[in-house]
Amino acid sequence: MAKKVITFGEIMLRLAPEGYYRFVQASSYEAAFGGGEANVAVSLANYGMETAFVTKLPTHEIGQAAVNSLRQFGVDTTGITRGGDRVGIYFLEKGASQRPSKVIYDRAGSAIVTATAADFNWEDIFAGADWFHFTGITPALGDNVAEICLEACKAAKEKGIIISCDLNYRNKLWSKEKAKKVMGELCSYVDVCISNEEDANDVFGIKSEGTEVTAGELNKAGYKEVAEKLTERFGFKKVAITLRTSISANDNKWAAMLYENGECYFSREYLMHIVDRVGGGDSFGGGLIYACLNGYAPQDTIEFAVAASCLKHSIEGDFNQVSVEEVKKLAGGDASGRVQR
Amino acid sequence: MAKKVITFGEIMLRLAPEGYYRFVQASSYEAAFGGGEANVAVSLANYGMETAFVTKLPTHEIGQAAVNSLRQFGVDTTGITRGGDRVGIYFLEKGASQRPSKVIYDRAGSAIVTATAADFNWEDIFAGADWFHFTGITPALGDNVAEICLEACKAAKEKGIIISCDLNYRNKLWSKEKAKKVMGELCSYVDVCISNEEDANDVFGIKSEGTEVTAGELNKAGYKEVAEKLTERFGFKKVAITLRTSISANDNKWAAMLYENGECYFSREYLMHIVDRVGGGDSFGGGLIYACLNGYAPQDTIEFAVAASCLKHSIEGDFNQVSVEEVKKLAGGDASGRVQR
Amino acid sequence: MAKKVITFGEIMLRLAPEGYYRFVQASSYEAAFGGGEANVAVSLANYGMETAFVTKLPTHEIGQAAVNSLRQFGVDTTGITRGGDRVGIYFLEKGASQRPSKVIYDRAGSAIVTATAADFNWEDIFAGADWFHFTGITPALGDNVAEICLEACKAAKEKGIIISCDLNYRNKLWSKEKAKKVMGELCSYVDVCISNEEDANDVFGIKSEGTEVTAGELNKAGYKEVAEKLTERFGFKKVAITLRTSISANDNKWAAMLYENGECYFSREYLMHIVDRVGGGDSFGGGLIYACLNGYAPQDTIEFAVAASCLKHSIEGDFNQVSVEEVKKLAGGDASGRVQR
Amino acid sequence: MAKKVITFGEIMLRLAPEGYYRFVQASSYEAAFGGGEANVAVSLANYGMETAFVTKLPTHEIGQAAVNSLRQFGVDTTGITRGGDRVGIYFLEKGASQRPSKVIYDRAGSAIVTATAADFNWEDIFAGADWFHFTGITPALGDNVAEICLEACKAAKEKGIIISCDLNYRNKLWSKEKAKKVMGELCSYVDVCISNEEDANDVFGIKSEGTEVTAGELNKAGYKEVAEKLTERFGFKKVAITLRTSISANDNKWAAMLYENGECYFSREYLMHIVDRVGGGDSFGGGLIYACLNGYAPQDTIEFAVAASCLKHSIEGDFNQVSVEEVKKLAGGDASGRVQR
Amino acid sequence: MAKKVITFGEIMLRLAPEGYYRFVQASSYEAAFGGGEANVAVSLANYGMETAFVTKLPTHEIGQAAVNSLRQFGVDTTGITRGGDRVGIYFLEKGASQRPSKVIYDRAGSAIVTATAADFNWEDIFAGADWFHFTGITPALGDNVAEICLEACKAAKEKGIIISCDLNYRNKLWSKEKAKKVMGELCSYVDVCISNEEDANDVFGIKSEGTEVTAGELNKAGYKEVAEKLTERFGFKKVAITLRTSISANDNKWAAMLYENGECYFSREYLMHIVDRVGGGDSFGGGLIYACLNGYAPQDTIEFAVAASCLKHSIEGDFNQVSVEEVKKLAGGDASGRVQR
Amino acid sequence: MAKKVITFGEIMLRLAPEGYYRFVQASSYEAAFGGGEANVAVSLANYGMETAFVTKLPTHEIGQAAVNSLRQFGVDTTGITRGGDRVGIYFLEKGASQRPSKVIYDRAGSAIVTATAADFNWEDIFAGADWFHFTGITPALGDNVAEICLEACKAAKEKGIIISCDLNYRNKLWSKEKAKKVMGELCSYVDVCISNEEDANDVFGIKSEGTEVTAGELNKAGYKEVAEKLTERFGFKKVAITLRTSISANDNKWAAMLYENGECYFSREYLMHIVDRVGGGDSFGGGLIYACLNGYAPQDTIEFAVAASCLKHSIEGDFNQVSVEEVKKLAGGDASGRVQR
Repeated sequence: MAKKVITFGEIMLRLAPEGYYRFVQASSYEAAFGGGEANVAVSLANYGMETAFVTKLPTHEIGQAAVNSLRQFGVDTTGITRGGDRVGIYFLEKGASQRPSKVIYDRAGSAIVTATAADFNWEDIFAGADWFHFTGITPALGDNVAEICLEACKAAKEKGIIISCDLNYRNKLWSKEKAKKVMGELCSYVDVCISNEEDANDVFGIKSEGTEVTAGELNKAGYKEVAEKLTERFGFKKVAITLRTSISANDNKWAAMLYENGECYFSREYLMHIVDRVGGGDSFGGGLIYACLNGYAPQDTIEFAVAASCLKHSIEGDFNQVSVEEVKKLAGGDASGRVQR
Repeated sequence: MAKKVITFGEIMLRLAPEGYYRFVQASSYEAAFGGGEANVAVSLANYGMETAFVTKLPTHEIGQAAVNSLRQFGVDTTGITRGGDRVGIYFLEKGASQRPSKVIYDRAGSAIVTATAADFNWEDIFAGADWFHFTGITPALGDNVAEICLEACKAAKEKGIIISCDLNYRNKLWSKEKAKKVMGELCSYVDVCISNEEDANDVFGIKSEGTEVTAGELNKAGYKEVAEKLTERFGFKKVAITLRTSISANDNKWAAMLYENGECYFSREYLMHIVDRVGGGDSFGGGLIYACLNGYAPQDTIEFAVAASCLKHSIEGDFNQVSVEEVKKLAGGDASGRVQR
Repeated sequence: MAKKVITFGEIMLRLAPEGYYRFVQASSYEAAFGGGEANVAVSLANYGMETAFVTKLPTHEIGQAAVNSLRQFGVDTTGITRGGDRVGIYFLEKGASQRPSKVIYDRAGSAIVTATAADFNWEDIFAGADWFHFTGITPALGDNVAEICLEACKAAKEKGIIISCDLNYRNKLWSKEKAKKVMGELCSYVDVCISNEEDANDVFGIKSEGTEVTAGELNKAGYKEVAEKLTERFGFKKVAITLRTSISANDNKWAAMLYENGECYFSREYLMHIVDRVGGGDSFGGGLIYACLNGYAPQDTIEFAVAASCLKHSIEGDFNQVSVEEVKKLAGGDASGRVQR
Repeated sequence: MAKKVITFGEIMLRLAPEGYYRFVQASSYEAAFGGGEANVAVSLANYGMETAFVTKLPTHEIGQAAVNSLRQFGVDTTGITRGGDRVGIYFLEKGASQRPSKVIYDRAGSAIVTATAADFNWEDIFAGADWFHFTGITPALGDNVAEICLEACKAAKEKGIIISCDLNYRNKLWSKEKAKKVMGELCSYVDVCISNEEDANDVFGIKSEGTEVTAGELNKAGYKEVAEKLTERFGFKKVAITLRTSISANDNKWAAMLYENGECYFSREYLMHIVDRVGGGDSFGGGLIYACLNGYAPQDTIEFAVAASCLKHSIEGDFNQVSVEEVKKLAGGDASGRVQR
Repeated sequence: MAKKVITFGEIMLRLAPEGYYRFVQASSYEAAFGGGEANVAVSLANYGMETAFVTKLPTHEIGQAAVNSLRQFGVDTTGITRGGDRVGIYFLEKGASQRPSKVIYDRAGSAIVTATAADFNWEDIFAGADWFHFTGITPALGDNVAEICLEACKAAKEKGIIISCDLNYRNKLWSKEKAKKVMGELCSYVDVCISNEEDANDVFGIKSEGTEVTAGELNKAGYKEVAEKLTERFGFKKVAITLRTSISANDNKWAAMLYENGECYFSREYLMHIVDRVGGGDSFGGGLIYACLNGYAPQDTIEFAVAASCLKHSIEGDFNQVSVEEVKKLAGGDASGRVQR
Repeated sequence: MAKKVITFGEIMLRLAPEGYYRFVQASSYEAAFGGGEANVAVSLANYGMETAFVTKLPTHEIGQAAVNSLRQFGVDTTGITRGGDRVGIYFLEKGASQRPSKVIYDRAGSAIVTATAADFNWEDIFAGADWFHFTGITPALGDNVAEICLEACKAAKEKGIIISCDLNYRNKLWSKEKAKKVMGELCSYVDVCISNEEDANDVFGIKSEGTEVTAGELNKAGYKEVAEKLTERFGFKKVAITLRTSISANDNKWAAMLYENGECYFSREYLMHIVDRVGGGDSFGGGLIYACLNGYAPQDTIEFAVAASCLKHSIEGDFNQVSVEEVKKLAGGDASGRVQR
């Protein structure tokens, strides 16, 4: 029987000018939906897992379109409370070459921000679940949302559900001090911690100290140090760190490390020609959870998660629309991009 | 020298699915900008008038795009204060046949709603101006905006500037009681009142009483009664009432009446096959102001205003993009739509 | 608890040139999915009913896209067997004025045509179901599909599930003789029969005889006669007949009659300006089933069904994307198409 | 063996904003090609006739695209001389309701305008031809083009080829005086004259005099009088006059009259909901030539030509893309626009 | 006088989601036509050669659109038999970076597959022809098509027409055993054999054996060995082998070798940033035939063919839309891509 | 107070097929406006400078759209004379990989070409101006335009306005001899000369002589020599030379040199993945003028100008749509293209 994963957070309307047009050139916007935890849920649904996404969304048609965008992939949306006034929006301008991508958030006052503890019955939501995932964006949305998140963690922990968290620091949403305090409490419930190179430092002030970094080489010892410190402080069972090198808005290198039982496992590194990088980190989380729930060995786990997210960078929209077979083929070494007939 | 018109209000990002797609079918939105007073400003700029639009808009690119959308027509935007977080949004689904158009407003917390009196220097803004226009939507945005509106009216009155107001009641923004109180005060400064068949009743409880309406015929006596009552209560110099008959989402009849010096002037009535009806009332306002400022006789005035707004219904977007020549040609009786080579 | 409806048939990829372009002008096709019974399922899902659609679809991405197109509305797709080589296709050219719409079917060899009885476990599929719906297109796809359809009817009947059938004769798929034989057997299981003015004659040779038709007037007695004859022959509990008058490719009149317990109930007639007429009949079926399952009186039932399908004609694609509230509003008499803010 | 028709004139790049956007709103233009005589050639090719279009076009890619646009329909383009600098352009803004369509010509200096007699070998071009067609636009392009046109007429006449001319007066290209003089000489070679209600008057000052026109009724006697006068003056064998009533930019009535051997044949009249009216007259010419070359009786001829051009109004672009079967079906009385499956 | 080339095979409707969208994201498909031998015909027509494409296509509008797609380039389509039910389809998803392009074939039951020998009169088709080209896909479509292909080869051989064949193995259409048998017989008629690195092995089990390949270097001796073995077995006059190195879905290296009279001629190698790689091999075939028919020396021949196909990779669609001048400019060494004004 | 810059030249309608489609594939064109001096004006307006663009444009809607395209950025268009018949057009086909971009000019007879001295009152135009800019394209349009340009230079010089000129040789517009003569006279008024590697040679026959160029390295001494010679001959205060290395149509290297007071300042070099390279040189001019008018040191000036134009290559259309902050960020060394949230 398929394992079941619950994710909780905000799903936003994503509005992006066509192609490489700038905001001030846009006479139309491509419309899609996305958000850290929703992206993870879709990834997993596309791998054939049972998934449910939990949030609050207005009853009007924009809210309904958000629900539909999840249902099309088979994500269970029955845990979504309907109410509130607006769907959060983010505007995305795709960068190119030396011109960076830009995101303008317009999420204040969205439905999930107005949610209360009464909106979610975690007992029901977690029935039959194996894994619970959230990101650092969710508690940053407001004290009430942080409170709901904490309740969810407690309920999950009680039921023996594995909990993962992607630290995902957003400085537009809260201060480092606030983040440290709130995330510190939440992380005490977390089993699997996902972070990029900056989040651990931004949220917890944890960074590598003892190692001299040589430019151009991965600072492997440094990443291990960060993972060790995180593990020490919060008792994580696994820590995964994604490693992005931005050559230009079009070209990035991408790899990751998994730290487990005191050992570090580094994935291969991919040179990616990017179609859409939003949701790249979330697709890593989706791959990681899939591999863990399916009993992959640590090296296989990190290779699967990185290959999954490498493929995401070639796909338009926040959602990773790839199958297990496609990820395995790339993780297995076939990165040539030859036509599949 | 061209006469100068100042308008004050909110300009919103308008997001509409392509063609007749419903919201839940949209994978892209056509993006434009619009808002009652901005629409009037653009109408007038397209007639060759000097116009300035006053509002508050964020400094980010979506705010800038709103500014650019006005500048392209030559509307003076130097009176726009930059600041605040978001541009108000409205989602528009175009109706067809028996299915009505739908508007979802997402305007809470927009920049203009956060404006204060200090944001606008009416002394400067009104320098050299001949006319000031606002609608009932603007004071409905919040007490602070109503306050700013009142200040503007006082400053305009002092300078001998003609003031027009389109009553435009929006029940999502305020109650009838609140509207009556606030609009009542503002209307004491107004010279030219524009209303449709329902606004006078919604805002001031003024409706025709003494006349039996025969179905299918214009209740001419009734409209006159409403205009008289409005004039009596607020001392308007002119009252213009638009008369829309909705046959279906595609087909409307459109006419109007001007009441001036105790006389009623009814325009001819047009049967319109609609391309986009949003901004139809505003384009009437634009036509009316143009005709008044250019000394048209009352009958010519109402014919010009109705022809202008009739043409608007054939044009995509909020803005009326027609010339004086085009309006005159229609007002002069050529409604055949023959190709102009 | 929501009533549950099962529908069974083919879902096809629908490829239509943009706007009013002809096939030979198309440099792109708008892609959607549709099919008689799938359309009914989506209608009902949009009314908040539990619905499941049963068919066979290939495992490849085009098959998956068909599944996703249903899941987005919450239609249960777990009864869809995956296998076979292709998704049936229909090309649609939208007509205008005197130029009719054209459909080119390319459905030979589609997955459902290759299905066998073993592909469907009706016992499981019908668990908890209240209604089973199919159309005359499904048994026309092949003897094997007719056989599966018969099995489904028997299983449904055994469980006391109400069965409806839309006669829907397709002369490209089978002869009138074959249709009469196969449909005759299937109709013996049917409770609710849906037909348009021609199907009853094409399939069963049943038409009105005794009444002189006066041009331009609905031949009410004639329709009643047809309904009576159908009821006599097959013991239907209800017969619904849709009445379309095609003025041009853009403009149609639309009404219907419900025959029940010897009584005829005629709906009001709508003059529709058409956006997309494909799926018009299916949306009538969806409305009818909804009304029946929710205990509407006969006159209310036929008004709801006709209003629902009237709205469908204003919507792009096969699927009717309207809510119960929207249908009720129109059925209640508001056909003015005024903007909903 | 198929009859062969030669047409001679200019083919232009047609640039039209999408949908109903005005020129000043356009961020893209739909690109197609068209021109009076090219449109006739395509009509005939689509009816299965052998056709050749003669003109001059630049060697660059825009010129090549014009050639390809004709070749796709099987029009013979080997008689096109390559050279010159530019392809003439016309910008088209589609009107709606009371707003007329607008055409901005940008055709000065196009390749055909720079052509000389040496560019065309009429002996070769007319080999095996049965019919030669041109319009009044071609000689209006310049004295040299008028000269070439005259040469073509002489060569055709010598070979016993039937010559048709659509008077098509364009006041932007020449004066009425000039037109009268040049067209007068050319018409002495013409067998079949096509005109609309205004051209005969604009070019030759020929109009109906003796008859009082009653508003709203076709002035049948008047049209006959015009045809008689034309025939008298130029010895035409047939005169066809198209009769357009413009209700709005969207809705026109359309009919025609054929005058032959002293008899008038009026077609039925169609009420058309217009998709694109450019090329409407040319498609009438195409239908007329087809019917004449295929030996239709006069009444059948005018019905075919009018039905053909009625269908054109439902088709995007200048070219009429319909088959003989489609025209016959409409001419035969089926104007209901019912779906063809 | 221009040399004439006949090609024979299937032309399919190509349906590709816009840009880099995946199949499951597509709400529209870009429509074009293509197929190995049709692509070669278009290449040659664009070089100014006389070309004819032979196939069978339905009479309906999709079939007609396929015909038109060839006629626009001046390809002679009079040898196309009209009949059958469907046009074969292939769905194309464009890959990016590590994500490969995907092709889903939906070609079963297409018109050409239902063709019989009686559908083609090779005597007429080959009148005046200099070259006949087909690919290994055509005989793979069915025994009847293989039979027709054999007849064509015999007829061509009798007339002294040069025959070329691109081996093009498609494992979805037939087994290696079947291919070996059928292609073996056909190849006995072939003068010029085109193959990529895998086809010779897949079809005939011919591969390089005696040479150790050093990674990253072209195995020049190995390719020569393959060409020698092919020549030995079938008596080819020329063997051309294309050499693709797939770095990613976006970036490929591209070169080729020509073997003639015991000598090998290697082209320069291009690093291509790919726009559309479908039809890349066919454009090589087109370039090769052009160079051969125009008497190019062997080294010039292979440089022309590779430059031609290098340019194809920068062009959307199956068809290579470049001129002789453009190919020569690149073959002559200018690969800088500087703007041509 | 903001400095004011006047530019004078032609603005054209730019028509480009979507994406990488070739001209012969285009069924639509993306429409924008651009031209050397207009592009500079927009660059500067986007940096917050006061700018005015001077030209002549027709009164019709295409002319109006050109005006609007400038006004949207706040460029002052009151100095534009309205008249003439057409807006010049250029067709742009975007190249890829080894396939170069192509430009087809269709500018003969445009409004500016028909301008006379009387159309421009330089006294008024230059009121309050600090800088005047034109390019070598403008005087190449015709003797009358060259004469107007000379008048402008004289008027500017008299008022002590700084004059800059981008040599920009266009061989389709005039001969080298003519260019040398006309530009020689104009350059005697110029303070700041902008040139690329070829213009100085094409126009004035000035090239580096004494230095051996080593392939692959910037010929720094050579560029200095060219700048020195230019300065010697015309007394320029500053000479800026842009240095482009075209690797392919997609990938270019880009740098520049500023020569001032006998010293050379070389910018860093960028490797650009190009979105649209048209207007690249103009955006350099815009950056240079901004830096000069704001008192940047020479090295900072050239870094700003190159960074500005590097960003332009990532932006669709002729106009550079970047802010001072964005340019400074890149000039300051951040070329990683990381997402800005």
